[in-house]
Amino acid sequence: MNLHELASHLGLPYEGDGTWVIQSPASLEKATPEQISFIENEKYYPFLKTTKAGVIIAKPDVGIPQSHVIRTPTPRLIFAQVLNLFYRARLPKPGIHPTAVLGEGVHLGERVHLGAHVVLGDDIILGDDVVIFPNTTVYNHVRIGARTIIHSNCSINDYTQIGQDCFIQQGVAIGGEGFGFVPTPEGTWYKMPQTGWVVLEDGVEIGCNSTVDRAALGETRIGRGTKLDNLVQISHGCTIGPHCVIASGTGIGGGTTLESHVTVGAQVGIKEHVTVGRGVIMAARTGIHGNVSKGSTIAGHPEVPLRIWARYSAAFRYLPEMQKNIRALKKNLAVLEARIAKE
Amino acid sequence: MNLHELASHLGLPYEGDGTWVIQSPASLEKATPEQISFIENEKYYPFLKTTKAGVIIAKPDVGIPQSHVIRTPTPRLIFAQVLNLFYRARLPKPGIHPTAVLGEGVHLGERVHLGAHVVLGDDIILGDDVVIFPNTTVYNHVRIGARTIIHSNCSINDYTQIGQDCFIQQGVAIGGEGFGFVPTPEGTWYKMPQTGWVVLEDGVEIGCNSTVDRAALGETRIGRGTKLDNLVQISHGCTIGPHCVIASGTGIGGGTTLESHVTVGAQVGIKEHVTVGRGVIMAARTGIHGNVSKGSTIAGHPEVPLRIWARYSAAFRYLPEMQKNIRALKKNLAVLEARIAKE
Amino acid sequence: MNLHELASHLGLPYEGDGTWVIQSPASLEKATPEQISFIENEKYYPFLKTTKAGVIIAKPDVGIPQSHVIRTPTPRLIFAQVLNLFYRARLPKPGIHPTAVLGEGVHLGERVHLGAHVVLGDDIILGDDVVIFPNTTVYNHVRIGARTIIHSNCSINDYTQIGQDCFIQQGVAIGGEGFGFVPTPEGTWYKMPQTGWVVLEDGVEIGCNSTVDRAALGETRIGRGTKLDNLVQISHGCTIGPHCVIASGTGIGGGTTLESHVTVGAQVGIKEHVTVGRGVIMAARTGIHGNVSKGSTIAGHPEVPLRIWARYSAAFRYLPEMQKNIRALKKNLAVLEARIAKE
Repeated sequence: MNLHELASHLGLPYEGDGTWVIQSPASLEKATPEQISFIENEKYYPFLKTTKAGVIIAKPDVGIPQSHVIRTPTPRLIFAQVLNLFYRARLPKPGIHPTAVLGEGVHLGERVHLGAHVVLGDDIILGDDVVIFPNTTVYNHVRIGARTIIHSNCSINDYTQIGQDCFIQQGVAIGGEGFGFVPTPEGTWYKMPQTGWVVLEDGVEIGCNSTVDRAALGETRIGRGTKLDNLVQISHGCTIGPHCVIASGTGIGGGTTLESHVTVGAQVGIKEHVTVGRGVIMAARTGIHGNVSKGSTIAGHPEVPLRIWARYSAAFRYLPEMQKNIRALKKNLAVLEARIAKE
Repeated sequence: MNLHELASHLGLPYEGDGTWVIQSPASLEKATPEQISFIENEKYYPFLKTTKAGVIIAKPDVGIPQSHVIRTPTPRLIFAQVLNLFYRARLPKPGIHPTAVLGEGVHLGERVHLGAHVVLGDDIILGDDVVIFPNTTVYNHVRIGARTIIHSNCSINDYTQIGQDCFIQQGVAIGGEGFGFVPTPEGTWYKMPQTGWVVLEDGVEIGCNSTVDRAALGETRIGRGTKLDNLVQISHGCTIGPHCVIASGTGIGGGTTLESHVTVGAQVGIKEHVTVGRGVIMAARTGIHGNVSKGSTIAGHPEVPLRIWARYSAAFRYLPEMQKNIRALKKNLAVLEARIAKE
Repeated sequence: MNLHELASHLGLPYEGDGTWVIQSPASLEKATPEQISFIENEKYYPFLKTTKAGVIIAKPDVGIPQSHVIRTPTPRLIFAQVLNLFYRARLPKPGIHPTAVLGEGVHLGERVHLGAHVVLGDDIILGDDVVIFPNTTVYNHVRIGARTIIHSNCSINDYTQIGQDCFIQQGVAIGGEGFGFVPTPEGTWYKMPQTGWVVLEDGVEIGCNSTVDRAALGETRIGRGTKLDNLVQISHGCTIGPHCVIASGTGIGGGTTLESHVTVGAQVGIKEHVTVGRGVIMAARTGIHGNVSKGSTIAGHPEVPLRIWARYSAAFRYLPEMQKNIRALKKNLAVLEARIAKE
């Protein structure tokens, strides 16, 4: 593809020779003259002097030493689209592997792929173009929408409803029993039956070895377009709104609600039965103890606004010095008091 | 089932029309007149005004606007029992799937179920009514007690001993090598062979994708009735006592002992080779650096009594103000000292 | 094996009767007169008085009440070697299980073992003596070096390169898509294609249910001899140097570099795109916000030198008292000021 063709495909203006041939995308650091790269974050501007990339995707107002440039206000997003053009997703061809095991009442859409040793239980409906990789287990009464991809060694428990265009990575466990135990007078724990199910709306993605538990009553729901990283825990009865992102190692307690467009950093913990408002941003390792009002940016444990947390953290370093100062003040004040008392 | 029949089955007193028909259990918020719900926590009392539940399980001394009430000091526990009456656990029928692979010396109890692609190694004994879901791997020399259920895609390594009535959720890894490496004079790491095994006593439950490592020497043991949530790590050589609960994301270091009835919140970290006494309660995210005496309720990192931690956390917020105060005090004191010196 | 034979095999001096027969290794606490144990950490010296171990491995300068002693400056390392002599690793015999599924272009070395229901995709090369346990899925274009062992229910995604003598425990997910999403002007998330792959150099070990993501562009690399514990997350594009150890529950953000010989405690979080220098040691739960210079020992969140963190933590406990002191100082100073003003 040449520069003119690519820019036309993207609907974006370009500078330089339209016949320049682009063979693949690459990072600024590693790109060659046959490759296209991008610049968005100012801190990488110095790399423009040394990169060998033949074509750069850049913001309209940035001076670029290279002669071939595609201009857009969102270079990173456009680069992702370019990558998608050049990168053929690694999907297997339609077909049912002979070692796959199908229960009763399984309805498969067109062009479905079931890998080796996949197990589907009873009463299953898969939409068109669904792909399930080897050694994944689907229990009974499960619905999976068109174009959804489930990678290998996953477990999808009973009554799970998965929308269209979802992407479930390796080793994910969906629909396990929520952690609900009631203390008995004898000091033991009695299981609260977990009778619910999990709903993943369209476009949900879940990272490797993450876990989403089913509710005690009713559903655990993850909203449209929400993305979960690896090793994330969603407890029973959570309602995660649309278009959230939740980074690795985070755990969300039972019955908690995240409204839409919430951004959760890595290793965050959110208490059970709280509500986090629309558009909240949590720094990595935030520990949420209560409701969070919409639009706030928070950090710390318990959580406070990020700018306050930064002030605390800075002050924290002066603790030993503050202790010393207080001791000195007490001493000096006592000296002064003694002197005045004498007069 | 009607109200009279249900109350009789539970052995509890009731108020209202005993012929009232109950079709299923539900939450206060979603229940209809044909459904039964419960009220225990005072903070949900306002819901009693709006719920449409036909029957409420409540404490003896609580005023209930509804006319059908079952009375008990433990409404949540009784509701769990009611759920169990109405909810048929989703267990498959006895039988060995033809794709299951059995090694030599496998002894199966009565009514065992082995799902598709289950693999059992050599020298295995399964008790009556054991259920193993698809794609789970059991290595060699493993014992599994009656009525234990192991979900899909689990891995149970050599010499694991699992008691009766255990419940292992999807993706659990039991009996992996403990993390034991000895530094060599050359700056590399030499593996300490992990020659031990894992013992789960009766009634243990383990959540999705959790990991329990085998010991270097001897056993890692989880006591009777103890419940683990998802993504929990139990390191080699731990001894977890009976009737503990351990919430999601917690990691327990090698050789550590928890005595009985310990409650561990989410994302807690416990150091290796410490002992936590009977009945200790740890808030979420507690970081344990040393032994903890029995019966204490702790929080923080390093751990302190919860009420102390609450005081620290409150004081923490005044750190920047304290800094300002100290600066002002120093200045004012200096002014005073100068004035007195002049006199 | 007797004491003389064992000491000769190890090339170490011994004290006592060389004909004393050693049947197996054990811990000091549980050893019998037919067993060998070791003492290294001073805090266990009191156990020497009560142990029944027949032979002790000890440092040259330690007084041992037992009459049979092997002397070495590194007793723990030598004990690990002794364990290896007595402990036969639990490896299955060479052979391809009939239920294993092999794609096109699979090249197997000598004496390879493939367990039941193992799936190998297309274009795979396995070295000699590779062992893959049941229900593990290997995608396409994967290379696995000689003597590497992959346990059950793992997923190894496309283009993964695994070196020789690696050890991958149960449930590990390698080569999943990195967590890369670009915000769109519409408030949704657009996937940055993850076109890269994962490289594990020789001697890498990875604990149960850990996850190593492939890079957006190029590789994620784990260096020679590095060891990962259970439930560890390595994000896309990380470069982990040789001979690091990373304990359970730790997550490392995308594009971060650890140089060689870094020791990472449990539940640590490291930010994306930072560099951690050679030989750095991080206490458990350290939260890294920036680059860390080589050789430092750090703790806290944000990170500081460990000895500083210890001072902060100590001072933290005096926060409420400091608040009280400051209030008292203000009051006393005001009294003094008032008195002087009156004079």
